[in-house]
Amino acid sequence: MTVVNPAPSEALAGLVSTGADHFATAVEAQGVPVERVEWQPPMAGTADDLAVLATDPLRRAANARAVEAVLSSQASLVDVAPASEVLGLEPGQFLHAGPPIAWNRTSGPLRGALMGAAAFEGLVDAPEDAVALFEGGRFALEPCHHRRTVGPMAGVVSPSMWMFVLEDPATGRRTFCSLNEGLGKVLRFGAHAPEVLERLRWMSAVLGPLLRDTVRAGDPVDVTGILTQMLQMGDEAHNRNRSGTLMLLRDLAPGLASSGHDPADVADVLRFIGGNDHFFLNLSMPACKLALDAARDIDGSTMVVAMARNGTEFGIQVSGTGDQWFTGPAQYIDGLYLGGFGPEDANPDIGDSAITETAGIGGFSMATAPAIVRFVGGTVPDALATTRRMHEITLAKNPRWTIPVLEFDGAPTGIDVAAVCRTGILPQINTGMAGNRPGIGQVGAGLVNPPAEIFPAALAALADRARSRAA
Amino acid sequence: MTVVNPAPSEALAGLVSTGADHFATAVEAQGVPVERVEWQPPMAGTADDLAVLATDPLRRAANARAVEAVLSSQASLVDVAPASEVLGLEPGQFLHAGPPIAWNRTSGPLRGALMGAAAFEGLVDAPEDAVALFEGGRFALEPCHHRRTVGPMAGVVSPSMWMFVLEDPATGRRTFCSLNEGLGKVLRFGAHAPEVLERLRWMSAVLGPLLRDTVRAGDPVDVTGILTQMLQMGDEAHNRNRSGTLMLLRDLAPGLASSGHDPADVADVLRFIGGNDHFFLNLSMPACKLALDAARDIDGSTMVVAMARNGTEFGIQVSGTGDQWFTGPAQYIDGLYLGGFGPEDANPDIGDSAITETAGIGGFSMATAPAIVRFVGGTVPDALATTRRMHEITLAKNPRWTIPVLEFDGAPTGIDVAAVCRTGILPQINTGMAGNRPGIGQVGAGLVNPPAEIFPAALAALADRARSRAA
Repeated sequence: MTVVNPAPSEALAGLVSTGADHFATAVEAQGVPVERVEWQPPMAGTADDLAVLATDPLRRAANARAVEAVLSSQASLVDVAPASEVLGLEPGQFLHAGPPIAWNRTSGPLRGALMGAAAFEGLVDAPEDAVALFEGGRFALEPCHHRRTVGPMAGVVSPSMWMFVLEDPATGRRTFCSLNEGLGKVLRFGAHAPEVLERLRWMSAVLGPLLRDTVRAGDPVDVTGILTQMLQMGDEAHNRNRSGTLMLLRDLAPGLASSGHDPADVADVLRFIGGNDHFFLNLSMPACKLALDAARDIDGSTMVVAMARNGTEFGIQVSGTGDQWFTGPAQYIDGLYLGGFGPEDANPDIGDSAITETAGIGGFSMATAPAIVRFVGGTVPDALATTRRMHEITLAKNPRWTIPVLEFDGAPTGIDVAAVCRTGILPQINTGMAGNRPGIGQVGAGLVNPPAEIFPAALAALADRARSRAA
Repeated sequence: MTVVNPAPSEALAGLVSTGADHFATAVEAQGVPVERVEWQPPMAGTADDLAVLATDPLRRAANARAVEAVLSSQASLVDVAPASEVLGLEPGQFLHAGPPIAWNRTSGPLRGALMGAAAFEGLVDAPEDAVALFEGGRFALEPCHHRRTVGPMAGVVSPSMWMFVLEDPATGRRTFCSLNEGLGKVLRFGAHAPEVLERLRWMSAVLGPLLRDTVRAGDPVDVTGILTQMLQMGDEAHNRNRSGTLMLLRDLAPGLASSGHDPADVADVLRFIGGNDHFFLNLSMPACKLALDAARDIDGSTMVVAMARNGTEFGIQVSGTGDQWFTGPAQYIDGLYLGGFGPEDANPDIGDSAITETAGIGGFSMATAPAIVRFVGGTVPDALATTRRMHEITLAKNPRWTIPVLEFDGAPTGIDVAAVCRTGILPQINTGMAGNRPGIGQVGAGLVNPPAEIFPAALAALADRARSRAA
């Protein structure tokens, strides 16, 4: 049995069929692109819950509200400031990516980053000295998501780190993300060698203050607008942020040059941003979180508002179930390795960066960034097919984020827990790959899915709420 | 009758047929993308010349040499300096786009630009005063191409204008192009209002000197490398130069910041470049010319080394026929108009910018820049089909300039006069559209072809040379 999954043009939107294969062939013979996918039954044990939600009187309007909230969100970069100031983070408090986790269950890269951050804060002399203090419960761990923050990979934030501050001008809602260090041996991939901490010190002493003064003196940077342009420029804004980084540089460079700071420092900052194609990731992520936070806590909505991994567990949060996390084991990544590394070096999936896929870009918009297959693996036809497939499990097409090669079709936006359970199609994430031992850093990049079981678990919780309301 | 023109993957490269339509249908039914094009006989009157060239013993090796020369060329930005210095241009001498032309045959936009340039040089008080002097033969006109230069649109260069200087480090060969003014009311589109001349004065007083000092103090900018990246970032480097402009800004910004110039001027320069998505066009063009100049004057080669338009005539030069121009009437452009303008306002095709298509990018690589259809018209499938079609008339695929969405197929490079005459397929150019009266400026952008008759004329000249050698 096959499902005919036509190109998502409006004219063909109704052309979905579970008919026999000769129908697919006939459609192809008329020149219509056809993707053959295996038909799958609903996920095991979800039939009853799907039936309950299908008749939930709140669901349709709740999801429409959630979609509207996401699509109407605008993100502007309005400030750059230390986490101690804008998050109220105190010495000994550390944020991390993903759902909540205790030290004794942390994976290598998260552990390595926490050790490095403790040394960076001056709480210990060397990263290794921090282990006993974490084990002894002297330091507090908390998910970034619990403080309106997202962090790529290990996602560790400590009080002295500087944060991008994003705001939706219509609502005043804010989100936060640290500044991107670059690739390779960097804290967020679990490295904490002296040069890693040295770079973090320069970022706090020079990069942060120059960005703060520039952003405060100029107009807010239109992060949502840059994302719109990026999707026309070969970036999917998760693992390709090249044009985004360049547009940010364009917007900040004149203000940096006339900021009154030492021209040598200005040149260093311009060189640092320009030399790191991923710098914009740390704006893409909080922009996505800002949009999704606007869709939280809508009773009856089956839309996913966060996907996040701490290196041990993968968790999702859903609009209709508040702050509850549904978690399962983080998966291993299928991808390409940096020189000298192989599968035995790789940690399972880690980072809050899947917030991009949750908002419809990243892996969901790979069709617009075919060059990414050289970084994460796979083929160009796979990349095109992935975006088409993600429309099967999403609630909307984002009219602001369009994909030229798919004839300006909107990015597949708003993952529907019910659609995932009904189709068995899992969200597609592309991601960096951290080394599995503290101190290693990045070992590759690739493709990964969430653990399947978290969607039936979320579905059950949604169905329970629907049953309670009906009772 | 149809020609089955499969996607240009290596595995299918041989799958070209003039068989009946059911063959195309059968191939499509197997999921192979098929483009149906009308089969055309060779261009009228070319059969004998095609036969002569088919047996020319020089041709194959000559074209291989020409291709190798183009593909191995590297362009670096090594200097920025006034035309008077680097081209030896003297007061009263003006370069223009396209093949040679006398004042009395110039079109509106070229005339407008020449009038403005005369005023900019201080040879007259007002642009209108220059008309009598041009009519009286007091000023000299010469094609840019005759001085190793290319100019977009009117392409007017006068001694006080500053030029990008590009060099191939392996050969020391150089080419030149003026600095891009932006869009709208600008000299190259034939405008010459006071603000146009004011902007040119700022470019000579501030922009040029700052760029000179920055380029001279730093490493040469790798223009060819930027072009490689652009094709992965949604630019085709003729009418989309967004990422290219941003990468140039990235490469120059640190040096500008630490140049010692007034920070306010540095900020103005950064703002000017960042505010003009087309700034890089004036580097893309001379980089293409540098590659194609390396393929000039190869006896027996049927490769086109220049396509250029002066607004009245469209001309080509061919490797095997030296500096001879083959010209025909410039065509009207099919495209999109800026607000308030329509077909009655448009001048025929103008500019040296078709050097990009001659080198395999621009219209030839539209598949990699599908968003461009919103600027030049047409559809996304058209853009993809155009790149595939251009492989029918080109000699090579450029391994450095690859197109991700076509599974990293190389750009169709090196137009073969014989292939154009044999297939009747004309080179596809996308281009800006100038107003048809002096002083108007840009009125739109769109798609255009050369006049068909210039290819049989070039073919005849090539065949004559082959006959002479054989005699």
